[in-house]
Amino acid sequence: MRKEICIVGMGPGDITMMTKEAENALQDSDVIVGYTVYVDLVKKYFPEKEFLTTPMREEVKRCRLCFDLAKEGKNVALICSGDAGVYGMAAPMYELLPEYEGVSLRVVPGITAANSGAAVLGAPLNHDFCVISLSDLLTPWEQIEKRLRAAIAGDFAMAIYNPGSHTRKDYLKHACEIMLDEGADKNRACGYVRAIGREGTKAQVCTLEELKDREVDMFTTVFIGNSQSIMQDGKLVTKRGYQI
Amino acid sequence: MRKEICIVGMGPGDITMMTKEAENALQDSDVIVGYTVYVDLVKKYFPEKEFLTTPMREEVKRCRLCFDLAKEGKNVALICSGDAGVYGMAAPMYELLPEYEGVSLRVVPGITAANSGAAVLGAPLNHDFCVISLSDLLTPWEQIEKRLRAAIAGDFAMAIYNPGSHTRKDYLKHACEIMLDEGADKNRACGYVRAIGREGTKAQVCTLEELKDREVDMFTTVFIGNSQSIMQDGKLVTKRGYQI
Repeated sequence: MRKEICIVGMGPGDITMMTKEAENALQDSDVIVGYTVYVDLVKKYFPEKEFLTTPMREEVKRCRLCFDLAKEGKNVALICSGDAGVYGMAAPMYELLPEYEGVSLRVVPGITAANSGAAVLGAPLNHDFCVISLSDLLTPWEQIEKRLRAAIAGDFAMAIYNPGSHTRKDYLKHACEIMLDEGADKNRACGYVRAIGREGTKAQVCTLEELKDREVDMFTTVFIGNSQSIMQDGKLVTKRGYQI
Repeated sequence: MRKEICIVGMGPGDITMMTKEAENALQDSDVIVGYTVYVDLVKKYFPEKEFLTTPMREEVKRCRLCFDLAKEGKNVALICSGDAGVYGMAAPMYELLPEYEGVSLRVVPGITAANSGAAVLGAPLNHDFCVISLSDLLTPWEQIEKRLRAAIAGDFAMAIYNPGSHTRKDYLKHACEIMLDEGADKNRACGYVRAIGREGTKAQVCTLEELKDREVDMFTTVFIGNSQSIMQDGKLVTKRGYQI
């Protein structure tokens, strides 16, 4: 019998922001595999399940663990924060799939931080937008810089993931400087949200110039408006273009 | 008392792909407002609710209807397909908000077609990506072309919304030609999904050159890989960069 592994996007963390499809996939599994931090967020909702975790930077090991468990006959759910296909485990799972005959994959989408964070800030991504990660663990910085410049050249709104961490303190500042250098106005409307959909969510709007010196961490998602975006009563709004 | 209007992203249509938060917001409302086609998709889940609709191109009227109902004291939910903040009603609602004192807004995010379609195709957006609409109803085509060129220049993966309709039959072809002209390889891995999360979902992968001549409609979402994306057993995979 063919074994199917579900790669499940759990959304920001709270079960009310998970889809029923995701909840069912977790409920129907024998074992739930994930990154320690995310597993801790959902454990309480599935008290009778077996959970297995691997730490950060052991993503490929985590994927292989899922395939091994599936080969043993277990129903496996691999959870990812946000959406399984946005910087998630969907791609490495598909890359490994050809090695594991008799196993198939199903991706269950979830609410990614671009969308959950946008909801908190108002409507920052309500026109064409880019999603860019500032983490250079897996991507050369030159590529990230190229994308930031292209995003400004195309006048996209942006959601920026992994804007900083304790080892990458000045990455957001550097990204802002690149955007300014590429011609973005220093008063460009921006914003950021920390701990989206979790205890103590905090949202702020500011200009691109101000954003440069804001402290952000790996639980923060940053939003850059396009050239027409506005700040309005603490919200960030990127117009769709309707005649109001 | 301050009246709050909920702008709710319903996901692709099926209730299992809606979040609990979205379902609760609809359940707690007195009246649900939306575009006729989307209202028809959710009506069956909320048989006791009052529904009000406006047709396409009457989006601003739809928004004002929500504010008027809220002023009358009604609990209003405005539904959008996918996510409320991705080409949805969140932005025009915020733009109108200053005209309506005593009313506040809450955006409830949903699964947008970029993510639900990606799940069907495998992992097409598993690295930095852009979301671009080809509809020129509200955006000059020159702006759309500029963004397509920037997306190729930055080597983004892409989700393309509104790739065609009966009045815009050749828009996708034209977009593909722009991408090829900007230097995208004709064998670039692409794909598209029709009727995501609904009856008769259909997914296909193909090269950028092949995509040019595929017929798509307003219920189709198109995915363009980045230069490293691959087609694998009918799936489209954009690698995150892990050492496999």
